[in-house]
Amino acid sequence: MTGGGRPGTRGPAEMRPLKITPDFVGTADGSVFMELGGTRVLCSAQIVNGVPVWRRGSGAGWLTAEYSLLPSSTRDRTPREAVRGRQDGRTVEIQRFIGRSLRAVVDMGALGDRTIYIDCDVLEADGGTRCVAVSGGYLALHLALKRAVDGGAMRTLPINDSVAAVSVGVVGGMPVVDLEYEEDCTAQVDMNVVMTGKGRLIEVQATAEAEPFERSVFDQLLDLAEMGIGRVTEAQMEVVSRAYSQAAATSSRP
Amino acid sequence: MTGGGRPGTRGPAEMRPLKITPDFVGTADGSVFMELGGTRVLCSAQIVNGVPVWRRGSGAGWLTAEYSLLPSSTRDRTPREAVRGRQDGRTVEIQRFIGRSLRAVVDMGALGDRTIYIDCDVLEADGGTRCVAVSGGYLALHLALKRAVDGGAMRTLPINDSVAAVSVGVVGGMPVVDLEYEEDCTAQVDMNVVMTGKGRLIEVQATAEAEPFERSVFDQLLDLAEMGIGRVTEAQMEVVSRAYSQAAATSSRP
Amino acid sequence: MTGGGRPGTRGPAEMRPLKITPDFVGTADGSVFMELGGTRVLCSAQIVNGVPVWRRGSGAGWLTAEYSLLPSSTRDRTPREAVRGRQDGRTVEIQRFIGRSLRAVVDMGALGDRTIYIDCDVLEADGGTRCVAVSGGYLALHLALKRAVDGGAMRTLPINDSVAAVSVGVVGGMPVVDLEYEEDCTAQVDMNVVMTGKGRLIEVQATAEAEPFERSVFDQLLDLAEMGIGRVTEAQMEVVSRAYSQAAATSSRP
Amino acid sequence: MTGGGRPGTRGPAEMRPLKITPDFVGTADGSVFMELGGTRVLCSAQIVNGVPVWRRGSGAGWLTAEYSLLPSSTRDRTPREAVRGRQDGRTVEIQRFIGRSLRAVVDMGALGDRTIYIDCDVLEADGGTRCVAVSGGYLALHLALKRAVDGGAMRTLPINDSVAAVSVGVVGGMPVVDLEYEEDCTAQVDMNVVMTGKGRLIEVQATAEAEPFERSVFDQLLDLAEMGIGRVTEAQMEVVSRAYSQAAATSSRP
Amino acid sequence: MTGGGRPGTRGPAEMRPLKITPDFVGTADGSVFMELGGTRVLCSAQIVNGVPVWRRGSGAGWLTAEYSLLPSSTRDRTPREAVRGRQDGRTVEIQRFIGRSLRAVVDMGALGDRTIYIDCDVLEADGGTRCVAVSGGYLALHLALKRAVDGGAMRTLPINDSVAAVSVGVVGGMPVVDLEYEEDCTAQVDMNVVMTGKGRLIEVQATAEAEPFERSVFDQLLDLAEMGIGRVTEAQMEVVSRAYSQAAATSSRP
Amino acid sequence: MTGGGRPGTRGPAEMRPLKITPDFVGTADGSVFMELGGTRVLCSAQIVNGVPVWRRGSGAGWLTAEYSLLPSSTRDRTPREAVRGRQDGRTVEIQRFIGRSLRAVVDMGALGDRTIYIDCDVLEADGGTRCVAVSGGYLALHLALKRAVDGGAMRTLPINDSVAAVSVGVVGGMPVVDLEYEEDCTAQVDMNVVMTGKGRLIEVQATAEAEPFERSVFDQLLDLAEMGIGRVTEAQMEVVSRAYSQAAATSSRP
Repeated sequence: MTGGGRPGTRGPAEMRPLKITPDFVGTADGSVFMELGGTRVLCSAQIVNGVPVWRRGSGAGWLTAEYSLLPSSTRDRTPREAVRGRQDGRTVEIQRFIGRSLRAVVDMGALGDRTIYIDCDVLEADGGTRCVAVSGGYLALHLALKRAVDGGAMRTLPINDSVAAVSVGVVGGMPVVDLEYEEDCTAQVDMNVVMTGKGRLIEVQATAEAEPFERSVFDQLLDLAEMGIGRVTEAQMEVVSRAYSQAAATSSRP
Repeated sequence: MTGGGRPGTRGPAEMRPLKITPDFVGTADGSVFMELGGTRVLCSAQIVNGVPVWRRGSGAGWLTAEYSLLPSSTRDRTPREAVRGRQDGRTVEIQRFIGRSLRAVVDMGALGDRTIYIDCDVLEADGGTRCVAVSGGYLALHLALKRAVDGGAMRTLPINDSVAAVSVGVVGGMPVVDLEYEEDCTAQVDMNVVMTGKGRLIEVQATAEAEPFERSVFDQLLDLAEMGIGRVTEAQMEVVSRAYSQAAATSSRP
Repeated sequence: MTGGGRPGTRGPAEMRPLKITPDFVGTADGSVFMELGGTRVLCSAQIVNGVPVWRRGSGAGWLTAEYSLLPSSTRDRTPREAVRGRQDGRTVEIQRFIGRSLRAVVDMGALGDRTIYIDCDVLEADGGTRCVAVSGGYLALHLALKRAVDGGAMRTLPINDSVAAVSVGVVGGMPVVDLEYEEDCTAQVDMNVVMTGKGRLIEVQATAEAEPFERSVFDQLLDLAEMGIGRVTEAQMEVVSRAYSQAAATSSRP
Repeated sequence: MTGGGRPGTRGPAEMRPLKITPDFVGTADGSVFMELGGTRVLCSAQIVNGVPVWRRGSGAGWLTAEYSLLPSSTRDRTPREAVRGRQDGRTVEIQRFIGRSLRAVVDMGALGDRTIYIDCDVLEADGGTRCVAVSGGYLALHLALKRAVDGGAMRTLPINDSVAAVSVGVVGGMPVVDLEYEEDCTAQVDMNVVMTGKGRLIEVQATAEAEPFERSVFDQLLDLAEMGIGRVTEAQMEVVSRAYSQAAATSSRP
Repeated sequence: MTGGGRPGTRGPAEMRPLKITPDFVGTADGSVFMELGGTRVLCSAQIVNGVPVWRRGSGAGWLTAEYSLLPSSTRDRTPREAVRGRQDGRTVEIQRFIGRSLRAVVDMGALGDRTIYIDCDVLEADGGTRCVAVSGGYLALHLALKRAVDGGAMRTLPINDSVAAVSVGVVGGMPVVDLEYEEDCTAQVDMNVVMTGKGRLIEVQATAEAEPFERSVFDQLLDLAEMGIGRVTEAQMEVVSRAYSQAAATSSRP
Repeated sequence: MTGGGRPGTRGPAEMRPLKITPDFVGTADGSVFMELGGTRVLCSAQIVNGVPVWRRGSGAGWLTAEYSLLPSSTRDRTPREAVRGRQDGRTVEIQRFIGRSLRAVVDMGALGDRTIYIDCDVLEADGGTRCVAVSGGYLALHLALKRAVDGGAMRTLPINDSVAAVSVGVVGGMPVVDLEYEEDCTAQVDMNVVMTGKGRLIEVQATAEAEPFERSVFDQLLDLAEMGIGRVTEAQMEVVSRAYSQAAATSSRP
């Protein structure tokens, strides 16, 4: 299979280059700046005491995510939602998607009376922002919880697996992984998949953009997604293990 | 397979009774009152001249959907969104889901400079409201377009397939179709599937509620959904063919 | 008196056919679907523990009403208020009218620390929607309170009379009762009257649409209204007594 | 009949002292500061070219009214609606009442492609603010239109009668005119009546505050209102004729 | 120095006539109607028990200011912010300016668990409204606190200086004080200065409207402002001392 | 002069380290990531065809600025304004300040029928964010206009000077430049100054935080500001000249 139909010389199963800068925001409890090709998202996590009203008294914690395109993240400027006075439907849908994806691996009981805010602000958007937000959001979450454990605020990390996401789709009749904006615009099928590091499914969202599709196509796309998520998971693990080895190095200094 | 775990004596692959009353709203261009067990949704379609600003000059039409829970549709009253001053995230997500699902079968070019509004108002909510909204919304859409064709406003029906949806999920460890509210609350996996009458996929939305799940489970759920959608499609076809035979009867009167 | 000037063959003092379906919404505490000619309104009542902030500590309860035109209830689609982000002036005025009308017969002290929500959602609008909402709202209220008494939540029904409303007006120079939409548009005087079953006044709202009118006209309209309200009250009483006899039949079963 | 039950020594049919200061606001086209006892309302009128979107192409003009309680107009500060982000239901209801009342005497065809804004801002509220707003609003309207005629923008005054309003009610079992705040709070019946200078009715809004009332009470209240409105009309006529005689004096100067 | 360049015969250092009517609003705790040339602002103060949430438990009080242009205060009608649903940026900026200016002289600790609301509503706007609002707001504040002291609610006046403001600017190349609207529109530099009665600075806000300016110009403007503020302070002192002598006269009556 | 009172060993007249990364956002027309000590702001500029409604037909362009604190930019998370549904007063005030500052050097006539959006999003806030936004905003603006000139969309750069800003204040009785957050919280006087590269004033905003201050203090602060702005201007010039020399290098390649 050649990458003939994709921008550049990318193959159908080839992810764009991934770059992760941890601890980008000093004021957050955990943060990464995650860049996947031309898509660049700042993800941060802050742990706040207390839970939303409707959850009080449950003993369990909560995690909520917020998402935003910075106005200059798109060639045609995206109007600032705070100025318009409301978040648009796409934003609401995406931040609910991120929140659900990350909550799936958090042990809310162990978290206790705390709320974790995951903020995903897109600095540049070139397709797949919601998936980068999930994958980066997981890292920000992990780093924030690690810091809480290191600082003694928690006994153990209240998460039981890692989370990563990729987009897949059918472009020009061909199933491909990790669509960039140009491809997204003409995709016949658009699909976002979220999985854990252990390979279990958290979210599958498939949409026929142009026209309905066969189940066999669906299965092919799911295979591609599984492969791409594996790549992202590896990159995440490197960031996490570096964080632990640094900590170890630091604590073992004489 | 016995229905041991489900409320009543319903089997895992058994849909709730379905009742469809077409032409429920005289002021709409097309409408049905669709009842699936205790879930009762009023779906109507209105065809309006003109398209949204961003679509002007394209020559193509548009379809948009709106969804609402009436305050008394739930045992604990749902606050009216018009009073609170904004639609909540779940509402926004659902109406985008309905709109995408129905747009997949509409030939926007043939529709021309028109916008179709699909309104789905839930009178009673007992699980699966978004799926009933899609299936009922399709019928309202079909009846409205048929009326436009009958009245000479359009030459041919600008739709190329039917659309139906069901929810499936894992409840108490068992994959089941058409979850009612009580089941929905404790489901481990929650999934909504939209397909065409010809058996092609339009939307798949699967969410791990409690914990991530295996791909094999996913496949089982998709099988169940395919079966349930078949049942809904049959019921839709009956309503549609009755509408055509009545029209035929009327027009053939001497 | 002939109906020469009215649509169809309706006489000036003739109400449109009235049809009342009680218990239409299973999730409400009380509900009716009330149809007066082409005007069809779903009215439901839900009793909730607690009262608004400003009423706390008073020992007395509260009743509030909300009103909405469903988008497809008018030939020209009415934009959904939840989407626009606020209720329009007419809606606010009408729901305050319904609330005041029903509060006039409720013994708030006997109601205790509870709020009753009356929701009036118009499925089809053909004139007189606010009056149907009041008359139907009363029935929903009565049925909800009866259920509370039957269930032991209250000792006695905290209402001391019934409530009904009709519209009257001057159309083509002639005073008529129960205006339909077509008449409403050209009425010179428009008036809504709310009375109790015992014939006392609760609300009178008269408005000169085209030009000011004489007090003698006002008196004629009030006579017509009294007559029309009598008709609605009879129909309400039938529904109520049927509810009681069914209950009696049920409870006397061996 | 003695005023035994009223604050001060006021009789049941006695209005509070009325003071009208015309031309209070130099930037408005017409304005009065109208004081009725402790109720003080600034009313102004501005004539603007063009009409609302929905009225374009009709050839006819429009009049709209806005009403506001300044925060310090009540002993307990009234929160500023612009800060809360929406007008409350009472405000919306009142400004619709003012607008309807004044539109009843304006010849919209003669007004042409213009919108008249009537702004009624309450500086102190001691009962009856909506009625003072109507009576003062009429004067602001008249003065603004007179200026337009004097300036040559219009040929003749597009109004065909004057408008005035008073509140009446039953307080302590006794029908009284022009309720002040203290009385308003305990009134059994509350009624606002708008009439023209020629004695015809424009609006009647009667509400049973505590319990329903007899039609005979209603008739008594309407008699009182007619009398009170006569008093206000006289005071309005004085202001108007003074405006014309000043103008005459000015224009006849050698 | 001649007033050649200014409207009328006003000199560059000449303030417009100032008129202050104290106690204009009976329902406020303190109020003045302050007129500076054609700019007329109603300022009132109300003292309310309790403080904003974020200040609770501090033991200290708070002062907040709100500002509004009445719609008819400008020749071209200013849309009512309560109708548009939000305050515009200029309003927000101005009311923050007023609040900061007055808080600078209030001893919040001595004020205790109370919030003072300063409401500044502009009846006519002819330049310098924010400065008149500050100067008039100070008087309303002083009169309200004096009443609280007289009534025994406080032991001593919790303010330690007076506050006044003027606008200065460069118009037609010439530094002038107290710009009216016509001048404001063409000013090259626009500056608002707030000082205490003792001559210390509270706020300086200078803005280059057309093009950047030299520091020497800035110094000249500050001199002019100091002079103008002296004039306003004198007028304020007269109002205050009259209030005290009246009170003295009253309390010394035999 | 020693830095005894400041955090670290910083002297009163010493700025924090300044780091400027140009072209940080590929989708913007011009952008810089500007870091002043712990304050880090992303500034971008986008040039859009057309001007706001109120400016149409003037032939002149417009520049508008928007400002936001990202939620995680502060240790205590700042709630996202798009979620709350409105920008808070501080945000509105700051973005108006940035807009006015930059407009002072733009030749709007030469800009023509275009609007420039300056977006300043704060990634970390440690005092002085509005000044960094102005200084960084100027660079984004310059780079965007340079690109437009390079691309042939404009003939010459429509700006006539550079713009930079610093904060100064009195902390612990001592005048200092460039306050960090910790200092800001306890400052007695807080002042923001905007000047051009040629040393002329654009904006001066001085506020007495705790108590009013003497004019001599004001003069000292202005001296400090002038010095600090000189430092920022130098750094800006380096970035600009590097941009030009790169362009020259590129265009002179054989």
